[in-house]
Amino acid sequence: MADAARGLATREGYSGYGAEQGQQALREALAATFYPGLRDADEVFVSDGSKCDIARLQLMFGAGKTVAAQDPSYPVYVDTTVMLGNTGAHDGTGFAGVEYMACTPENDFFPDLARAARTDVVFFCSPNNPTGAAATRAQLTRLVDFCRANGSLLVYDAAYALYIQNPDCPKTIFEIPGADEVAVETCSFSKYAGFTGVRLGWTVVPKKLRFADGSSVHADWNRVMTTCFNGASNIVQAGGLACLQPEGLKEMRATVGFYKENAEILRRAFQGMGFSVYGGVDAPYVWVGFPGRQSWDVFAEILEKCDIVTTPGSGFGPGGEGFVRASAFGSRANIEEAVRRFQAVYGKK
Amino acid sequence: MADAARGLATREGYSGYGAEQGQQALREALAATFYPGLRDADEVFVSDGSKCDIARLQLMFGAGKTVAAQDPSYPVYVDTTVMLGNTGAHDGTGFAGVEYMACTPENDFFPDLARAARTDVVFFCSPNNPTGAAATRAQLTRLVDFCRANGSLLVYDAAYALYIQNPDCPKTIFEIPGADEVAVETCSFSKYAGFTGVRLGWTVVPKKLRFADGSSVHADWNRVMTTCFNGASNIVQAGGLACLQPEGLKEMRATVGFYKENAEILRRAFQGMGFSVYGGVDAPYVWVGFPGRQSWDVFAEILEKCDIVTTPGSGFGPGGEGFVRASAFGSRANIEEAVRRFQAVYGKK
Repeated sequence: MADAARGLATREGYSGYGAEQGQQALREALAATFYPGLRDADEVFVSDGSKCDIARLQLMFGAGKTVAAQDPSYPVYVDTTVMLGNTGAHDGTGFAGVEYMACTPENDFFPDLARAARTDVVFFCSPNNPTGAAATRAQLTRLVDFCRANGSLLVYDAAYALYIQNPDCPKTIFEIPGADEVAVETCSFSKYAGFTGVRLGWTVVPKKLRFADGSSVHADWNRVMTTCFNGASNIVQAGGLACLQPEGLKEMRATVGFYKENAEILRRAFQGMGFSVYGGVDAPYVWVGFPGRQSWDVFAEILEKCDIVTTPGSGFGPGGEGFVRASAFGSRANIEEAVRRFQAVYGKK
Repeated sequence: MADAARGLATREGYSGYGAEQGQQALREALAATFYPGLRDADEVFVSDGSKCDIARLQLMFGAGKTVAAQDPSYPVYVDTTVMLGNTGAHDGTGFAGVEYMACTPENDFFPDLARAARTDVVFFCSPNNPTGAAATRAQLTRLVDFCRANGSLLVYDAAYALYIQNPDCPKTIFEIPGADEVAVETCSFSKYAGFTGVRLGWTVVPKKLRFADGSSVHADWNRVMTTCFNGASNIVQAGGLACLQPEGLKEMRATVGFYKENAEILRRAFQGMGFSVYGGVDAPYVWVGFPGRQSWDVFAEILEKCDIVTTPGSGFGPGGEGFVRASAFGSRANIEEAVRRFQAVYGKK
């Protein structure tokens, strides 16, 4: 990225607007690295991150659409649905009109699709933020079949896919047969390469995917990306391309491995203190249960007693109540210090 | 930017997600540089560019809004209006439901507001892309009064403001009394610092600005920017901040001055060949008339006979028919070569 920035100051290295869909070399490297034999480069659209792509997807879907999301999940799915005017009022628990698909320890954090209402769009994040649950091949096959049967468009958020170690959990929805007829997948360099703040992600839209009227989702998405967006920064795209070279991939996997160790330290520590603990194996997040308590009360208690900021579970939807999320994204020293402080307050077993 | 990129590889220089609204130092520098005494730093929202902000503004306005735009103008205003579903069909000339405000040599490229229909939103670009016309203080005062009288929200695109040399033309809409009650202003580093492809811009939303129901536009925009966007790249923001230091400002003004010389070379050359020529004085674009001819035919003729790519005027709206846009963004050698080729075909006077 430093070389790309310096290059812009030279006649040879200067480039103006690039293709809004991303530099061809980066699109090809993303397809070859993450979707070998599954997707082509021209189905990969480079962007300034998943959050931004989710908002643009909502803009493409437009007003009057019904939406389902895992509960709990990354708040942007529901928040952007609210902003599009596609929900009713908030009743103190959730927004009217949103199909909250409960993900609890009782259902192994996979929704009961037999009881879920049909919606136009289904948002699904695996490994899930915040629960850390990664869906298995069998579960994702049920999800794809559910969306196919309902004519729902599946927005699959795979931002943490590299954290998966369970061989039964696919790293992309496109490993599931038929997914290319129902799903788009969004992903990001943020949690792979420490690119939080650098802004680089991508969304995969299969050419086979059609709206109900038979029109191409790929063509519509191409129009959205070329009209509402002007490409990710050329400097940052150079960084993404470096990440996908052999040395970059090695460093990226080492980074992910380091945070997975952090997650394991946190997971074991909370287990050792006698908490109900979920996630932290195939994901950088550990989901800690405080049954019967309010998330914000627990948050405040931990802040006051341990001087540690956690994330209250209710921020991820009504189903997050009674949990807090612990994040593995920190230095080893900070993670170990956090564990010491937790243990001092909540008791070492 | 190179330093910022290298810094990310160090513990001290690493930063994760920043404020979605932009780094505070950059917001302050933008307010102090471009809006001294007019706007505060917390009214300036840093973004990945004006095009993206225009799409997010449309997302904030939502479905069911009526829109006016100069004709001709930058296509993104009308295109995003179409994508929001706020227009009817295209009748071969323009989209039903859009208030095209004709800007022609006859009206000095400023719309006849007495004949313009009231709309919810008015897009106005000055200096205009593609005509190169910069609106005067008197004209902008009429525009602000028109929007105030109609309760219209004015989206003022000032992407080329630094190119203005006419002292009668304000460089920001906020020089006009009352503009802070009707206008947001969007701007960009793209044409100031050669940042096309680097992706950095900003939008100014006055705290005084209210929707018809009395709610704060600033609060809504803050919500859009924090939910649908995750900040401009931290590396790129470092570049923006450098541009606003004394040395950076000097270089930015030198860059703008260089392209203004290019524009002058083009303008004089077209005049010398006997064309009707507009713009190119307060803007990097020269607007060349080919009365009675179709823009695309002229484009094809110039491409075939001169091996030069121009931009057909009809791409900027029905009012652009019969014109082509020439851009000053090129090396001096390329501009001079272009002039030679034009003169060889269209005759040196």
